[in-house]
Amino acid sequence: MSPSPDQELAAVAFDGDALTYVDQRLIPHEVRRKRARTVDDVEEAIKTLAVRGAPAIGVFGAYGVAMLRSSIADDAAFAAAAKRIRDARPTAVNLAWAVERVLAADDMQAEAVAIHREQLAMDAAIADAGIELIPKNARILTHCNTGPIATAGGGTALGVILAAQRAGKAPHVFVDETRPLLQGARLTYFELEQAGVDATLQVDGAAAIAMARQAIDLVIVGADRIARNGDTANKIGTYGLAILAAHHGIPFYVAAPRSTFDFGIESGDGIAIEQRPAAEVTTLGGTQVAPRDARVYNPAFDVTPGHLVTAFVTEYGIVRSPYLETIPSLEDRPSLRALLT
Amino acid sequence: MSPSPDQELAAVAFDGDALTYVDQRLIPHEVRRKRARTVDDVEEAIKTLAVRGAPAIGVFGAYGVAMLRSSIADDAAFAAAAKRIRDARPTAVNLAWAVERVLAADDMQAEAVAIHREQLAMDAAIADAGIELIPKNARILTHCNTGPIATAGGGTALGVILAAQRAGKAPHVFVDETRPLLQGARLTYFELEQAGVDATLQVDGAAAIAMARQAIDLVIVGADRIARNGDTANKIGTYGLAILAAHHGIPFYVAAPRSTFDFGIESGDGIAIEQRPAAEVTTLGGTQVAPRDARVYNPAFDVTPGHLVTAFVTEYGIVRSPYLETIPSLEDRPSLRALLT
Repeated sequence: MSPSPDQELAAVAFDGDALTYVDQRLIPHEVRRKRARTVDDVEEAIKTLAVRGAPAIGVFGAYGVAMLRSSIADDAAFAAAAKRIRDARPTAVNLAWAVERVLAADDMQAEAVAIHREQLAMDAAIADAGIELIPKNARILTHCNTGPIATAGGGTALGVILAAQRAGKAPHVFVDETRPLLQGARLTYFELEQAGVDATLQVDGAAAIAMARQAIDLVIVGADRIARNGDTANKIGTYGLAILAAHHGIPFYVAAPRSTFDFGIESGDGIAIEQRPAAEVTTLGGTQVAPRDARVYNPAFDVTPGHLVTAFVTEYGIVRSPYLETIPSLEDRPSLRALLT
Repeated sequence: MSPSPDQELAAVAFDGDALTYVDQRLIPHEVRRKRARTVDDVEEAIKTLAVRGAPAIGVFGAYGVAMLRSSIADDAAFAAAAKRIRDARPTAVNLAWAVERVLAADDMQAEAVAIHREQLAMDAAIADAGIELIPKNARILTHCNTGPIATAGGGTALGVILAAQRAGKAPHVFVDETRPLLQGARLTYFELEQAGVDATLQVDGAAAIAMARQAIDLVIVGADRIARNGDTANKIGTYGLAILAAHHGIPFYVAAPRSTFDFGIESGDGIAIEQRPAAEVTTLGGTQVAPRDARVYNPAFDVTPGHLVTAFVTEYGIVRSPYLETIPSLEDRPSLRALLT
């Protein structure tokens, strides 16, 4: 797999004129490529989770802003459009980071392409770094979706698993379905199946007994935002998994590129938790599954304290505690951008 | 609420001729009463979870066997029918217990009615015992459904909560939706709403952050089978909740009548875990939510070690550790049957 932003099934692609993406809400029923032309299109695709996964959102937002620079001549209108895209999801740090980087560039389109190429290189480097953590025939538990479709690259946590499969380690993956939006059932299981990886789907509530009775060797997940002390915001349910893993003495790994680390916040207390609409919980695929007027607690993310994370897998290698020393040091490493150009 | 087996909205009712039940799969969309006439009807209602909740299944099975004694003259055919009912769900001890008790009685119909009356009295006693555990304005987390509809009485864990509400303690209840079958979203939220209790629905994966950030005071759940050492089989997800509660220093209570205790097994190792069909996980309300051919791990129950249970709430009062002493002593207490007759 050569790092290229124009692979056929790419989650996000831009040919200099048209920005297209795979609508992740339709998988596994259908792999449908859609086109975004306006700021409304870009914002809606992010807000409705048609494009999701922190890195994919970053790449998509970068392309979106670059594209709109060509179509919106008025500077104030363009700035407002870029702000709408940057703010379309509050928790994922990649989106604001990518939008701001594009805005600061002379050639915005080239910058967006660079961000995408770096994403592919980053994911490949994460997979290379993480593979040592995966024993032969490992039984792995994962949550949500962190595959190629979520990163517009090779994937983070799932990228490590896919690399282990390619290396002949024959992992078996227990996939949390990941309510409310079922990214595990819809996307991760699908991506594992496509790659020929042995996979078993389970409800999120089955994770504890899977750890107790299914000989799980390790948990690996992605992240949406990581503080200097290792506190990690990720899909709702991750924090519980980390506690369960610690209880069972199972390593708990987080795979994420440096762009997911927010060096400006000391701890998870600084991470705003996005509350999402009640209908995500009360309905499913158009079916009402709870009273229509039900009051719902629907945080999109939770925050896992750094002390529950065995190690982070980054494009710079494995990062272990003490995180308050090792994470800030990532900031000083040479950027992949510099290495790629 | 006078203990009576013929209340209007009763989960299960028998008038000496017709056995009826509320089809729990249709709630909250519809409260539809159905009639069971044959062994096929009774077995199917249990197997498809139209009637569910360990105590309700026990009452339903008892009535079913009593009813079939009138319609099946041949002793061998009747014995085979009773065996089919007894074996319709493998994990819940109440079903086998109730069926065997009816089979051993001279007047099977009177015995089934007695089991039902005792259930109502038991639930009332459990609620009385548990109320001391609920502080004023308590924030309570619960899982699955343990209300009147699950017990054909007043409920166990939810019965305690409903009693706290009646006593003016104004609890606020966080309800796990409880995948795969969403008993929390469909039944518990509905029953709390009906009773005017403040309730908030959440996905199962939100329990950990709810404990960390929503000031949960206690967790209370029901049980399907409890071993002599306190190991508790209950709805999938319970074991994880118990670990999370321990991690957050939150008391974890199990409310269950003596009939749920299996004095014949030393520990949870003796409890068979029922595996249920993959389609429960891959579909929802007729909607396919995962690849149709997905391999699925779908245990109906998990087993929570007794050491994670702060206390049991029974019709004989609060039972605390050391469970290997306190639980077996329940076996010697006078039966409610004796007290009621």
